[in-house]
Amino acid sequence: MSNQELTEQILKKKSFLCVGLDVDLEKIPTYLLSEEDPIFSFNKAIIDATHKFCVAYKPNIAFYEANGIDGWKALEKTINYLHQEYPEIYSIADAKRGDIGNTSRMYAKTFLKDLGFDSVTVAPYMGKDSVEPFLEFENKHAILLALTSNEGAFDFQTQKIDGEELYKKVIRVSQTWENADRLMYVIGATKAEFLTEIRKIIPENFLLVPGVGTQGGKLEDVCKYGLSKNVGLLVNSSRKIIYASESSNFAEIAGAKAEILQRQMAEELRQL
Amino acid sequence: MSNQELTEQILKKKSFLCVGLDVDLEKIPTYLLSEEDPIFSFNKAIIDATHKFCVAYKPNIAFYEANGIDGWKALEKTINYLHQEYPEIYSIADAKRGDIGNTSRMYAKTFLKDLGFDSVTVAPYMGKDSVEPFLEFENKHAILLALTSNEGAFDFQTQKIDGEELYKKVIRVSQTWENADRLMYVIGATKAEFLTEIRKIIPENFLLVPGVGTQGGKLEDVCKYGLSKNVGLLVNSSRKIIYASESSNFAEIAGAKAEILQRQMAEELRQL
Repeated sequence: MSNQELTEQILKKKSFLCVGLDVDLEKIPTYLLSEEDPIFSFNKAIIDATHKFCVAYKPNIAFYEANGIDGWKALEKTINYLHQEYPEIYSIADAKRGDIGNTSRMYAKTFLKDLGFDSVTVAPYMGKDSVEPFLEFENKHAILLALTSNEGAFDFQTQKIDGEELYKKVIRVSQTWENADRLMYVIGATKAEFLTEIRKIIPENFLLVPGVGTQGGKLEDVCKYGLSKNVGLLVNSSRKIIYASESSNFAEIAGAKAEILQRQMAEELRQL
Repeated sequence: MSNQELTEQILKKKSFLCVGLDVDLEKIPTYLLSEEDPIFSFNKAIIDATHKFCVAYKPNIAFYEANGIDGWKALEKTINYLHQEYPEIYSIADAKRGDIGNTSRMYAKTFLKDLGFDSVTVAPYMGKDSVEPFLEFENKHAILLALTSNEGAFDFQTQKIDGEELYKKVIRVSQTWENADRLMYVIGATKAEFLTEIRKIIPENFLLVPGVGTQGGKLEDVCKYGLSKNVGLLVNSSRKIIYASESSNFAEIAGAKAEILQRQMAEELRQL
């Protein structure tokens, strides 16, 4: 999906919500555990109930790998279901991969070609040749970790190299790489005040913003400092939506939670 | 496996060789492709032929994920075979994972508990809380990316923060984390000259050194600057061993290649 198509979908749905499909068997309604594929059953219900209010889904791959082969099967079924039923929705494999070039190429093929995700999250520590293989796919994106939402972001990401924070250097340097227009960046909502500086370096690139909700980031701050003229934001919420209820109507309640966020986003978009 | 047990195995076998099981279906002997599980058949043959000359195996997870469910099955079979047949050998899941704390915890459980690897490689970009969950397992290790063997290492890792290169800061800061004695570090053989400085910060921690062979690093340089009093080195070779031949006696030739490296290592150990 191109940036333009993504923006068009956002404006049509009045939402830039991404729903994180971080499915933990210990947190889903227990009655689902007797189903043949509890993870897929949960995802299908969540997707059917929330798709009107969001423009993207983001399974975090850790939660699928934790279930071994069953987890991979559920991941495949989930992305296939999404492509079949809601082909207009953007998909993110939250995998945070990155390796030497020939190995990154394997990961890129797995997530962007074989599984058919629109994008994959990538760690920048190993530099240019570890990221560029993810940028070789037309109308697909690599979403580079820049400033993450966790406490550990202050260990290295905000440390200064020649007066410039590492995360800014990652953004600036990565913009010189081949196919840099296919880059998006992870910027945690818990650090919304940093967005003004970030927008000076990348006024238009999409930012994937986790940390709204459970981790304490505020949507209005993210929008105030992060919205670009093409919207340029995907705001992720996982636990606050998908685990809003453990009852049999969990999907309905997840839908209602997603709708609340969608309405707040519609308000923000009105001010564009 | 504890550091001490690993050192004892090294001294007994006179080898600190790690064989990288980076199995690419396009590179293995074509006659294996007709077998039920070509990846496992290849690994089994390589392991049986090389186990006398090495102390560790390191499957790079990208190569398994690239084959989806079949890849995961082959990975499980490989690690189970290793545990059953050669329980004294150290195992490394080369996964280069790292995420926010509760998600890193899932990855740690997957590789260190469920699959039962002795260690997993971890990316440091997201800081302390992304790494510590990998350090909660007794007699297991997290192997932190510090200075990698690829060209992209110069993009960020060697950049200076307050006069100190990022990779050194990663090593130094990570040594203050909980259970830091369970940390090993990835240091590329292509940058052996950096080892003197690294040994000043961590005189005893094990270093996993890739890049000997195909990537051009030299074993004698790695030993000259990297050997500690407890050996403290695992030197990895992948393609130069496992793809040394495409003929039906590929495993035998891989064994011979491993033995050549083992003999060089025995020489180096004699000088300890």
